[in-house]
Formats: sequence, C-alpha cells, structure tokens
Amino acid sequence: MPMTETFKKAKSAGRKLALLTDEKRNGILRDVADAIIAGKSYILQANVADLKKMEPSDPLYDRLMLTESRLESIAADMRNVSRLPSPLGRTLTERTLDNGLRLRRVSVPFGVIGMIYEARPNVTFDVFALCFKSGNACVLKGGRDADCSNRAAVDVIHKVLAGHGIDTAAVTLLPATHEATASMLSAVGYIDLCIPRGGRKLIDFVRDTARVPVIETGAGVVNTYFDAAGDTEKGQRIICNAKTRRVSVCNALDCLLVHRARLTDLPALCAPLAEKQVTVFADVSAMNMLRGSYPDRLLADATADSYGTEYMDYKMAVRTVSSAAEAIDHINRYGSGHSECIITEDADTARQFQTRVDAACVYVNAPTSFTDGAQFGLGAEIGISTQKLGPRGPMGLEEITTYKWLIEGDGQIRE
Amino acid sequence: MPMTETFKKAKSAGRKLALLTDEKRNGILRDVADAIIAGKSYILQANVADLKKMEPSDPLYDRLMLTESRLESIAADMRNVSRLPSPLGRTLTERTLDNGLRLRRVSVPFGVIGMIYEARPNVTFDVFALCFKSGNACVLKGGRDADCSNRAAVDVIHKVLAGHGIDTAAVTLLPATHEATASMLSAVGYIDLCIPRGGRKLIDFVRDTARVPVIETGAGVVNTYFDAAGDTEKGQRIICNAKTRRVSVCNALDCLLVHRARLTDLPALCAPLAEKQVTVFADVSAMNMLRGSYPDRLLADATADSYGTEYMDYKMAVRTVSSAAEAIDHINRYGSGHSECIITEDADTARQFQTRVDAACVYVNAPTSFTDGAQFGLGAEIGISTQKLGPRGPMGLEEITTYKWLIEGDGQIRE
Repeated sequence: MPMTETFKKAKSAGRKLALLTDEKRNGILRDVADAIIAGKSYILQANVADLKKMEPSDPLYDRLMLTESRLESIAADMRNVSRLPSPLGRTLTERTLDNGLRLRRVSVPFGVIGMIYEARPNVTFDVFALCFKSGNACVLKGGRDADCSNRAAVDVIHKVLAGHGIDTAAVTLLPATHEATASMLSAVGYIDLCIPRGGRKLIDFVRDTARVPVIETGAGVVNTYFDAAGDTEKGQRIICNAKTRRVSVCNALDCLLVHRARLTDLPALCAPLAEKQVTVFADVSAMNMLRGSYPDRLLADATADSYGTEYMDYKMAVRTVSSAAEAIDHINRYGSGHSECIITEDADTARQFQTRVDAACVYVNAPTSFTDGAQFGLGAEIGISTQKLGPRGPMGLEEITTYKWLIEGDGQIRE
Repeated sequence: MPMTETFKKAKSAGRKLALLTDEKRNGILRDVADAIIAGKSYILQANVADLKKMEPSDPLYDRLMLTESRLESIAADMRNVSRLPSPLGRTLTERTLDNGLRLRRVSVPFGVIGMIYEARPNVTFDVFALCFKSGNACVLKGGRDADCSNRAAVDVIHKVLAGHGIDTAAVTLLPATHEATASMLSAVGYIDLCIPRGGRKLIDFVRDTARVPVIETGAGVVNTYFDAAGDTEKGQRIICNAKTRRVSVCNALDCLLVHRARLTDLPALCAPLAEKQVTVFADVSAMNMLRGSYPDRLLADATADSYGTEYMDYKMAVRTVSSAAEAIDHINRYGSGHSECIITEDADTARQFQTRVDAACVYVNAPTSFTDGAQFGLGAEIGISTQKLGPRGPMGLEEITTYKWLIEGDGQIRE
C-alpha cells in the first residue's frame, strides 16, 4: 500500500520535528514567509490554473482566489505564528509523591495531524504554520478545485524545509481524491488526530467514517436570545454585528429568539438588519410585529426547517419564546454547540443561561462574532471545535498539543 | 426507536445532574455507599446467579465474583470519591480583552458518558461514582456474564436516586447485547464520550465502529529498557515489580530491552523473576546469557510475535539492543503508548528517552506499575487513555470534564 508508506514517512518526520528547538522552527517559518513572497508569481500562476476550471459566478470562486495582497497577508500571518510562544514543553502539573517519585505532565506534539479541507488554498499555509510551530507533522487533503494552488504552496514549503535539512514529509499533500480521504481516516497508528474543515456534509462524513480520533469543527447553528430584561440599543448592535459582520463564517447568527414581553421592541431590534438586506423567517407572533415596519420583500414565514439551519447568508430566523427556559431548551435542541448569546440586564438570568446552555462559547451582551482564536487571545486558529472530547471552541497552538507524564524515581517500587 | 428514547432520557437527566450542588452529589454518593452495605445480600444473590452460569475454572470467574468484603471495599471507594474535590466549575483561563470583554474557560461535565465493559460488576459502581461526582449521566453496557449483578447494582443506585428526587436516567444500564453496543456507538448528539474498557478486541471494535467520540483505554504493551548505565540492583527491583506486582493489569511489563554491554547483568536482572515463575521469551543473545542461570523450563526462544504482545500473564520477552536509540525505536514501533521505562544512571540518556518515547507515561528508574490514577494523585480512575486526543494516561475526575468559554460584555461589537 503506497498510502501506508506515505503515512509512515509522515510519522517519522513528525518524530524528528518534535526534537527541533523553537528558534529553529521560527526561523524556518520566517523563511517560508519570505519564500511565499519570492514565489508569488509561481503560486499565482498555479492559482490561475485552478480558477480557470471554475465559473467566476461560483460562490467558491472568491475563496479559491489568491492575489498578491492575499499572499502578503498569508506571509504576515506566518511571521505572526513564528512570534507566538511555543506551546511545547509547558509543565501542566507537577507533584512529588510521598515515596519521592516526581511526576510532571508536560505538553508535547500530537505527532501527525491530518487535515481535510475544501477549496481554500490559504488553509494549506495556515495549517502548515500552526502544525510546524507545534512540532506536528501534517498530512493535508485539500479540495480538488484548489489542487494546483495547494501543490504550488507545498512545493514552496518543501524547498525551504529541504534547504534546512528538514524531512519534507513533515508536510504531505495527498492526492485530492476520495481514496486519499478514506486512507487517512483509517490510518490508525499514523494519524494521531484528524481535523475536517468544511461544510456539514464533509464533517458528518469524516465523523461517521473515521477510525482515527477526530475533532468536529465549524458547523455553527448559532442563536441569540433577547431576554425580557434585554437592553434594546445593545440588542440592535449585537444582533446586527452577529448576523452581518461576515455571513459566511460559522459564528454568524442564524436564529434570534425574542421574549414575548419584548415583541414590541422587535421592529427596533431588526431595523439595522433591513439596511443590510437580511431576509427574516419569522414565526407568527414575530411576523405580526414586523409586518409594516420590516420590508415586505425581506419577510417570510418560518417553517420547521428554519431553526436548525446554518444560513451562511443574509438570512435569519426569528422565534418568539415565553421564557429564558424556553430559549435555553430551543438552543440545546437546535444549536450545534458552537456559540450562543443572551442579551439581558438581569445577572441571574445571564448566569442561568451560561450554566444551562450546552455550547463551546456562551455570551452575555456581546455578539457571537467574537468566537475566533485570535480574538480570544490564542494567537491563531486552526479551527473551532464543536465537540467536547479534546479542545472545545477556538483551537490555537496549545489546542493542537497533547501531553505526556514524565515520572522520575530512584528505584522505588509499588507495594 | 426505543433506544433513542433511552439516550434522550439520559441526555435530559445529565443536564439536570449538572445543576446539582457538589454537597448534594456527595450526600447521594454516601447514601449509595450505605445502600450497597444494606443491600449486600440482594446484590450477592444476583451475583450468584451470574456465577452459576460460569465454570469456576474460567479465568473470568474471579473477576465476576462479588463478596461481602469486596462490596465493603466498593462502598468505601464510593465514600472516597464523595470526599474528592469537585472537578466542576474550575476556572481554567481568565482574561479581559482590551475592549473590556471578559473571557473565562470553566470546567463543565461532558453530559452523557457511555461505558462499555466486560465481566466486572464492580465497574458499574465505580463508573457511576465518578460520572455522578463529575455531573455526568452514564449509559452502561456491561458484559452478558455479569448482567444479573449489574442489574442489581443499578437497582440499588436507582432506589437512592429516586429517594432524592433525582432522575434515575442519570444511570442507565443497556441490555447486554451487541445491538445495544451498536446503538450507543452511533448515538451522535446523545453520547458525548464513549469509553470502552476491556481487551484489545473490544477496544478495536469500538474505535472502528463508533460515530461518537471515543477514548481508547487500557491496552498496554509495556517495555522497560535497561541501559548501558543502568544500576543492576534498581533494575532487579523495578523489573520484578513491573512484571509481577499484578500480571493481569495493563501497566504490567511485557518486554525487557537490555543494552548489549550489560548482557552479563541479565542473569542477575532476571533472577527475581525466576522465583515468581515468569517464563522468558529471549532473543539469541539473551538466551545465551540466561541459559544455565535461568530455569530451563521457564526459557523459550523469542519469535516475531513476542514483542507486540500484551501477556497479561507470568510471561515476558527479552530483547538485546545496541543503543538507547534502538530501544526507543523498538518502543515506538511495538509499544501501545501506555507506559514505558528506562533504567539508567545517565541523566542525558534518561532525558533523551523521555523526549523521544511516544507514550502516555515515561518512567526513569521506577516501575510502570505506578501508572494508576490513585497513585498519580488523581483520587480515582475511570481508565487509562492510550490516545492523544483528550486526556492521556490515567483518567480521574478532571479528565471526564470538558470546558466551556463564558464571555461577558456590555454591548461591544467586533469591527
């Protein structure tokens, strides 16, 4: 099996990466950043080959496209990563037992991280930077649409690695085929962690198929609850920011829950959304309040499908609830465990909401658009985990390390 | 689907458990401990029904058997768990951003933990205690051999829960069938974490089949390397303790690697093992050294299968290596990432070994028999993780919690 050989090489390269010093790793990251700038025309040429195969009207076209300024920003991000503190070698626990045994729990790389992603060639550089900085080899399975761009990116990285005498299997780009995905997902003993980044369908497929450990990321059915004690002016700002800052990201608002007692404020809460051309799918009570104030062409009746949907668009559901408890139940039923928010001036209700809502990030009086590794002070982000095993929420460098227990004795034995 | 209803109820019970105070949880654990003592004859009667179906010569017979004193020790363990600090509500990270947003990462329960285990009815009580203390509901799938005992155990627990007005779905014992296992492994959205506890076959099946997050536990192919700079007297004690303290546990030694330069010490290193009737599978060089000093009837030639085997018995492989690097390569190839040990007086070699060996617990001059949650100061143990995603090594109460990010603002928005 040639694929097994590929994974074996990645494993071996990962073991060597773990032994580099942080200075060495940072120098290499800076050199790759330079090589991206020096290799702009080579990378852009490859990107044009990908773009030619896609209709410019395709919503993925813009995500696929690289430009000079995008490459500059990718290189700047890589330099940023090189400046972050190393996530390795941190002592997480330290204790000496009565018998003199010394125990330490120390952060170490996973080994090999498998990444499955769709048509965004910048991810190739991002994932390399975060994995390399954290001492992990990475095995990449990119989308077919971006294959020329990804090959060029990895080519640029490999040249720098080889120049430093680093095993180039530290970054391996698999063929953009389903067979490659299947091989990665069953590479037990070689892939220590697999992170799928993409739409719901990809993530479900990976979770349902993988025999290696997986972190589910990204899928965000995001709710915001405007409480009986909510401040209208804060609500306007928070809801508009959460919905419209960037509609195509996973932290964007999908459903506004509004307390029945505050239905009269709904037109004011939604007014900024009308300016941004957001279509609202309203339940009966909300519809009755919005009709007349909200533009008719942007109003539609909510259906059963309106609530569990991640819109990724200028679209939002509105549902009326009779209590905070009902809002919490709605969220725990329809949310995806990503980011949830309450707008309230009542501290008790806020606390209840934060305690009972089962999600990675639970906000009080701030928009879910803040869910992001850089915003959270993690320095960078490889994805946002929506599961509970392993890291939860934004994943930076520390979140792609594991630990080992180091135990030092002097001949003690266990009775 | 009746099974889905079962999981839904567990999920709902878990959400309620998370809201109890630690005092309330501890009181209930103490009451269950009392109920175990009060219900001794009821539980033992059920256990006899299980024992009747098994031959007393079966190696599982002793593991299946409950006795008055074993129940007393189970009750004492439960009281111990009630006295441990709560793993919930710990603030793991706290920061205030420049814009005034306050971020906290706080430990919370997983929700529902699924446990799949074999014929040891004490596990039913242990798992309940650890899950309940950490605010998690548990769904148990025990072995068919122990089904009467497990039903009696859960019955005793349910009576106490009901008496306190706690939803008894907080502890759910599934039928001891393959269908129940299959249902649990595909209960996405209901089972937040699944922990299989048992032999290699069970664990491989769970990992290969599950659609819910899994922690692989237990399987331990454990090595100890006696270095060129090893102390013979420490080596004798450490090797004998690691191999013979309890041969049926996962931290027991399976393969001794000995540096070629110290082959002459091999007879001394193995002498205590002869007293314990340990059969040694030796490679050619080791065999040449041991023949004459080690009892012939306990000596056999090593084969290709000798090195990747978890013996669970008074059996051990011995292999000669030419360097610490060769020992490390052997371990990274044949070990299961559980517990590994070096015996050396050379600090540099010890550090190299700890850095390069890829395992949950890496020992210097102490036996792997210490790998245990209670020994490590975790208070108790639900299993020993051999994977890198999530907790690694012994898992106590903290290791079966996750966290959520709580974000508090005052109307800030993201630009």
